[in-house]
Amino acid sequence: MTNISNNILAGKKGIIFGVMDEKSLAWAVAQHCVNEGAAIVITNTKNATMLGPVKELSNTINTPFIECDATQESDLESLLTKSQEILGGKIDFILHAVAQSTNLRRHKTYEEANYAYFHETLDISALSLHKLLHTALRLDALQKNASILTLTYIASERSMYGYNDMSDAKALLESIVRNFGRILGEKNRIRVNAVSQSPTPTKAGSHWKEESYFYKYSNKLAPLGNASADDLAKLCVMLFSDYSQFVTMQTIYNDGGFSKTLLSPDLVETFRYAFDQEQ
Amino acid sequence: MTNISNNILAGKKGIIFGVMDEKSLAWAVAQHCVNEGAAIVITNTKNATMLGPVKELSNTINTPFIECDATQESDLESLLTKSQEILGGKIDFILHAVAQSTNLRRHKTYEEANYAYFHETLDISALSLHKLLHTALRLDALQKNASILTLTYIASERSMYGYNDMSDAKALLESIVRNFGRILGEKNRIRVNAVSQSPTPTKAGSHWKEESYFYKYSNKLAPLGNASADDLAKLCVMLFSDYSQFVTMQTIYNDGGFSKTLLSPDLVETFRYAFDQEQ
Amino acid sequence: MTNISNNILAGKKGIIFGVMDEKSLAWAVAQHCVNEGAAIVITNTKNATMLGPVKELSNTINTPFIECDATQESDLESLLTKSQEILGGKIDFILHAVAQSTNLRRHKTYEEANYAYFHETLDISALSLHKLLHTALRLDALQKNASILTLTYIASERSMYGYNDMSDAKALLESIVRNFGRILGEKNRIRVNAVSQSPTPTKAGSHWKEESYFYKYSNKLAPLGNASADDLAKLCVMLFSDYSQFVTMQTIYNDGGFSKTLLSPDLVETFRYAFDQEQ
Amino acid sequence: MTNISNNILAGKKGIIFGVMDEKSLAWAVAQHCVNEGAAIVITNTKNATMLGPVKELSNTINTPFIECDATQESDLESLLTKSQEILGGKIDFILHAVAQSTNLRRHKTYEEANYAYFHETLDISALSLHKLLHTALRLDALQKNASILTLTYIASERSMYGYNDMSDAKALLESIVRNFGRILGEKNRIRVNAVSQSPTPTKAGSHWKEESYFYKYSNKLAPLGNASADDLAKLCVMLFSDYSQFVTMQTIYNDGGFSKTLLSPDLVETFRYAFDQEQ
Repeated sequence: MTNISNNILAGKKGIIFGVMDEKSLAWAVAQHCVNEGAAIVITNTKNATMLGPVKELSNTINTPFIECDATQESDLESLLTKSQEILGGKIDFILHAVAQSTNLRRHKTYEEANYAYFHETLDISALSLHKLLHTALRLDALQKNASILTLTYIASERSMYGYNDMSDAKALLESIVRNFGRILGEKNRIRVNAVSQSPTPTKAGSHWKEESYFYKYSNKLAPLGNASADDLAKLCVMLFSDYSQFVTMQTIYNDGGFSKTLLSPDLVETFRYAFDQEQ
Repeated sequence: MTNISNNILAGKKGIIFGVMDEKSLAWAVAQHCVNEGAAIVITNTKNATMLGPVKELSNTINTPFIECDATQESDLESLLTKSQEILGGKIDFILHAVAQSTNLRRHKTYEEANYAYFHETLDISALSLHKLLHTALRLDALQKNASILTLTYIASERSMYGYNDMSDAKALLESIVRNFGRILGEKNRIRVNAVSQSPTPTKAGSHWKEESYFYKYSNKLAPLGNASADDLAKLCVMLFSDYSQFVTMQTIYNDGGFSKTLLSPDLVETFRYAFDQEQ
Repeated sequence: MTNISNNILAGKKGIIFGVMDEKSLAWAVAQHCVNEGAAIVITNTKNATMLGPVKELSNTINTPFIECDATQESDLESLLTKSQEILGGKIDFILHAVAQSTNLRRHKTYEEANYAYFHETLDISALSLHKLLHTALRLDALQKNASILTLTYIASERSMYGYNDMSDAKALLESIVRNFGRILGEKNRIRVNAVSQSPTPTKAGSHWKEESYFYKYSNKLAPLGNASADDLAKLCVMLFSDYSQFVTMQTIYNDGGFSKTLLSPDLVETFRYAFDQEQ
Repeated sequence: MTNISNNILAGKKGIIFGVMDEKSLAWAVAQHCVNEGAAIVITNTKNATMLGPVKELSNTINTPFIECDATQESDLESLLTKSQEILGGKIDFILHAVAQSTNLRRHKTYEEANYAYFHETLDISALSLHKLLHTALRLDALQKNASILTLTYIASERSMYGYNDMSDAKALLESIVRNFGRILGEKNRIRVNAVSQSPTPTKAGSHWKEESYFYKYSNKLAPLGNASADDLAKLCVMLFSDYSQFVTMQTIYNDGGFSKTLLSPDLVETFRYAFDQEQ
């Protein structure tokens, strides 16, 4: 982790979903938030605690871990209630980094998706944000001017071979960001945004076989290369802070310029090589 | 219906979902398609046949009606099989105009959505397109160069008070258009697009209480005013025809310019009136 | 040219800018328009008539050629006046296919652009559309419901190595489409759109050295492959016709799905090949 | 100015264009940058120094003022050279807040724009950014990881009655952000972004007669209301800082959610009032 800290989140209380292991995007975010002065709670499902050292990681930064299945409103209620007790007040920021596709994991192609799995993908990866915000609103658990972030990927806008129903879940997620963002903004000046992150090597991403080629392509196309988990964490700190209070309902690209680049000199070289050999 | 016909769809075989009554968008499309030389099948749910004169309308243009619940793969299989028998070959075009939100109908607010209804909204209004294309692909029911259209609304991109979970369903639908469009394009040169239509007075739209004010606002902002069902039908004919064979995976705005207008002179007058009175 | 004709433009009067030789996009459009029953005038600069067989081509379809520099209002006035005399009434449609970059032609890099050339690029490739519409409005030369089209490229939205200041000119052009489209829509129901076309081999495109690699990449990424000049012409016919009267101020992608695709199976193979060799 | 400071820009050297008077957006940015520990230079044209108390304001924060016409490369060269001397090293961040339209000032309508003025608008409001970055690149005046910001408005994407050729200039400006952003990213990890700000009452905005109505409309539609100059300044601090090093080539909306909102409850009330009276 790079050493950057200006105590920007001093006094703020946050909840971080999605920590699984050291390579998790959410873990980088959790560390940076603590480093910037925030008090946080880490949460994930029971299953996640068996797949990775979530509790151990939480301990290393003296942060409580609360088990929660983000698709269950009763779990969310419990999480929000306990977090407020532990942190001593309403919540200032939340990172929603929750995504799972059984279709993807079981190597179903997109066109032959299982529909029970499809609904599950949408429920875990998108509706869970709605449930979280719904519950928070009902419990009045969010501080005025709170900041909510979720993670998305540009496959929500452009079709990507191999990303499967997760593409659709991310499109749905970004829509929920806009719709719940409008309501929370009108009600209590709370903002909701999605960060569209570069492909980042994590455990969650490891099932996707083409990843290594695509990671390299993305790295060559993006003028700054792919953003790392650490780079994401710094941006999240900024978006949780009071420096960005009028940014809401947006998808913000932390991708080194990938989304706005059609062709780079590096990629011309790759194509030259590949296409010359083809002939 | 305006009298325009150049026999552009001569020899083409189509299926039209979503006809309910004379004001249905799908009914305008069905009439124009027949008028342009296509042979079509009309389909809707059993429930729709009880709510509106679907069968009677089908009869007036000598078009078979086949009952089908677009969320049921067995129904879709039956529809596609029978349609090919009746029409004498593979399908050249389909209009998917299928949408329903029980949250909206029961006046649930977005933030208090019932999640069983939410999944139902997504299933009927978005996943039904996936199921339709999945089934068509499995049955090899689509002609090479076939054209698939679905209907969407700009609330998929910008949050609209009162439109509820239908906003999210439309965002999901447009994502499915892109993802299945890529696959069908690669496999068999089939194209899939969504048309984002102006607000149009229909039976389906009647539950939305703010509609009349918004319709007027939309009509004042759009430089050409709101597009009618008839205007939509003409565009659909064009997009079903062989004149648009390289347009795919797109959302096409049939909205008189609404989507690209921030302020019109007419609207300045409205604001002048309303805001001067406020003071 | 594919043999498609339904007399869709019968009785319509049009002006086609940008014919240079047999490979010009505008030439394909001109032929299709005539084939669909329109009466047209072809126009280009004096310089163009020396670089390509513009007049000879015009003759082969019995179409008058009128010289016009689209950056000169006096020339535009003369063109619009003469065209109305020859065609016997107001103009129903115009194709504005006008673009030139001296920075690109002289192999200046983008960052070392000559600013006199830059302004010239903007003037020829973007402001010429404003001047054309300005003059047409002043002369009242456009029929109610007229349709204006210009050609653009997706480099207006994503940065492309090698496309130089033409990227910026296309962004400006699409903005003029929106702004003048609003005004003409409000005044006389005239619509203005841009078609964002696949890379297409033409004389105008031949200066761009990386074109062949990029053409192949684009062809592999787009699910339907790159659209040809002929495919463009068919779409233009429809956008000039009365089938699309409520589509305005838009950029419409005639690109086989390129703009909405992040990764195709074909491209995975290219990357596998290129990146495996690199190691 | 709100009292927020975490020394985020400690040690950084910046240049701020566009300070005219106390209400200038750039003035808010300048104050916040200094407050966060940056050393800056303020610049504007000779003409600006006669229209507003630029030099006096610079003095109040002990900041040097350097005269510079951003359309003149010689002026830019001098500015960049002197700034490095004064600040003691390469430049870490720049705010480009430079815009002017004589067409707008002289109440020309968009459709009757004077083309000499139009080119001037593009030159001052968009090409000046290209010239600035071109000169900085030539002089090697930018620090690795430098951050460049410019200000834009959503009229670049949607046509706005009354905003005139400034709409087109902003579209061009955002394109230059992408194109020069790619090049500077590839060369030296420098990022370039545009912030799309809410309408904000400033001297520069006072010529636009409809402003007050539109300001209220924008304030009612945006879930958080319009962002102020102070809100903009805080965001700029973060985008200049090391917290956002992988965000580049983007347009970032500091608009309280305006850009992503189609209809708010407040606006329904306005329409109800205005449209009920109309009948």
